[in-house]
Amino acid sequence: MLIDCLVDTSIAVVGSYACIRAYFHLERRLRAYILSTYLPSMLVVLLSWVSFWIDLESVPARISLGILTMLTITTQSSGQGRFPAVSFTKAIDVWMATCLVFVFGAFIEYSIVNVLARREKINASAISKATATGGIAQVINATIEQVLFDK
Amino acid sequence: MLIDCLVDTSIAVVGSYACIRAYFHLERRLRAYILSTYLPSMLVVLLSWVSFWIDLESVPARISLGILTMLTITTQSSGQGRFPAVSFTKAIDVWMATCLVFVFGAFIEYSIVNVLARREKINASAISKATATGGIAQVINATIEQVLFDK
Amino acid sequence: MLIDCLVDTSIAVVGSYACIRAYFHLERRLRAYILSTYLPSMLVVLLSWVSFWIDLESVPARISLGILTMLTITTQSSGQGRFPAVSFTKAIDVWMATCLVFVFGAFIEYSIVNVLARREKINASAISKATATGGIAQVINATIEQVLFDK
Amino acid sequence: MLIDCLVDTSIAVVGSYACIRAYFHLERRLRAYILSTYLPSMLVVLLSWVSFWIDLESVPARISLGILTMLTITTQSSGQGRFPAVSFTKAIDVWMATCLVFVFGAFIEYSIVNVLARREKINASAISKATATGGIAQVINATIEQVLFDK
Amino acid sequence: MLIDCLVDTSIAVVGSYACIRAYFHLERRLRAYILSTYLPSMLVVLLSWVSFWIDLESVPARISLGILTMLTITTQSSGQGRFPAVSFTKAIDVWMATCLVFVFGAFIEYSIVNVLARREKINASAISKATATGGIAQVINATIEQVLFDK
Repeated sequence: MLIDCLVDTSIAVVGSYACIRAYFHLERRLRAYILSTYLPSMLVVLLSWVSFWIDLESVPARISLGILTMLTITTQSSGQGRFPAVSFTKAIDVWMATCLVFVFGAFIEYSIVNVLARREKINASAISKATATGGIAQVINATIEQVLFDK
Repeated sequence: MLIDCLVDTSIAVVGSYACIRAYFHLERRLRAYILSTYLPSMLVVLLSWVSFWIDLESVPARISLGILTMLTITTQSSGQGRFPAVSFTKAIDVWMATCLVFVFGAFIEYSIVNVLARREKINASAISKATATGGIAQVINATIEQVLFDK
Repeated sequence: MLIDCLVDTSIAVVGSYACIRAYFHLERRLRAYILSTYLPSMLVVLLSWVSFWIDLESVPARISLGILTMLTITTQSSGQGRFPAVSFTKAIDVWMATCLVFVFGAFIEYSIVNVLARREKINASAISKATATGGIAQVINATIEQVLFDK
Repeated sequence: MLIDCLVDTSIAVVGSYACIRAYFHLERRLRAYILSTYLPSMLVVLLSWVSFWIDLESVPARISLGILTMLTITTQSSGQGRFPAVSFTKAIDVWMATCLVFVFGAFIEYSIVNVLARREKINASAISKATATGGIAQVINATIEQVLFDK
Repeated sequence: MLIDCLVDTSIAVVGSYACIRAYFHLERRLRAYILSTYLPSMLVVLLSWVSFWIDLESVPARISLGILTMLTITTQSSGQGRFPAVSFTKAIDVWMATCLVFVFGAFIEYSIVNVLARREKINASAISKATATGGIAQVINATIEQVLFDK
């Protein structure tokens, strides 16, 4: 007679009985996923951060860097096509989307910095022009105008 | 005896009868599609709008930005290949095509602005040249010529 | 008795007979193909023509534009992989190949224009140098040399 | 009685016998492969040769041209994924690999030319500097140094 | 009577017996993999080393070179999608990941060199400015400041 091993047999049942207990130890072999998905996408996110080291003035370099990392992440997501298409969210989808958002953030950061730097340069030249032609009053006016009207 | 539950039994049939009613609540789990398709394509369309922030003079940067976003959208569309190929239009196809048209529009906008800016610069130098060499009559002539012959 | 409806029964056969006639109206639903293949490739070909609007001097922009449109068309052709691989030529293959040839033509046009513009610039500087140093005879010589020896 | 038609029956066997001979004419329909694989890869190899026409000084243009053609050939090879994966070498694999090597060669050619041009420019400025400051002896020294120490 | 050939029959068993021995010689045909995977990825890694030859000043060229080789390796990895998706690490995955790391290293090398070169240029101009305006004391100060505060 076989009884359920999970039932605590020490108290209720008098006598000793045989019971079968099976453990299924399921383990996902992670190394393949790390090599083919996680490592490349991490490297690409790191690449997008290299953009912060490059000179602000070299616009084509930083723009290319920003978009090509986006494109690389996208290509890697497309390479996931070998897995069967399921309707629920896989952890790997969340990972790839997060990587994409990081890369996108690095790009947006550059575009904002680019706009600010250009505005600053225009302001600086306006102030220096005011200094050259007029007196202190004009410099103050130019500065105030910039602050007020956000030129 | 089972009768159709949808028939209003309160009036016509005398007596009470058992009837079976089943509700099938079908719901598409959207999160996977949002993460793997809608989010990336939205980010790429946003990227193509960053082009409006970048300086007009940096031609390679804006051109690269325009085309690489086109290419990224195309790569994302190719990544849809894991869905079975059906002959009718899916909502996701309409979405991807709309994204492509948006990105294309941002690129065309730049090329038009580029042409206009170049023409304006040529006109400005022509007028200043006329001012330097001749009198007001020539400046007026140059301006009229530009308007008339669309130089 | 059933007879073939396609046989003209009005003359040869005396009497009236029943006949079955079936029409199968086959129609390809085009909208999905237009959205996922024809529209994107048309837009990319249009993009490659934008190259004619951009300034001749901005070499990196026009080169990038030329190649990236080639690459985009190629990516779109690869995206056709979801259709079963058949050995005969499909109309969509002819379309994609034609788009590729158009994009290639636009690129080749730029490279030829680039070479001609560079040669013209060298010639112009040679003539102006001859004008500066010597008399009219040298200018004529320089011009003749360019024509004859295709410098 | 049927005998093998390939045996020369005119001599050895007396009498005439019926024999069945079947010819199977197998022909590969090439046009689809030419349109979808051979034509695009040929165009891309031609594109990589356009690099020889472009000005030596425009480094970003020629570098982009070199790598993007590599990338395009790679994308085209990936597009072969619709054919079944076999373990032996197909003629189309040899073709794609050869195209890749051609494109690679064109790129390497540019990088070597780039290095040589830079070295030549440095040498020219060194000699002109020596000419400006010192006498002929220094010019000779500079030239010898360049040849000997490969500066 | 058949006995196991692997058992050493010379000693224990008296007499001679027939035994069947079969050798299965399994050999992987490597040429297809070399042509379609190993050769292209090796070429791309070589391409990424070309970056070391190109001038330090041409930022867009070297940045494009670095990222596009990353993208090409990624595209090649995606092209592996025709092999069945298995959960263990294949040798080809290790190879592709190693190539990716090499290409990434070449890119990181450039970004570090770029930062160092920019810092050196700033330092040089600071020292020359100090030399022009003040005496030796200021030059020493500037140098010390650079070393101490890592300007």
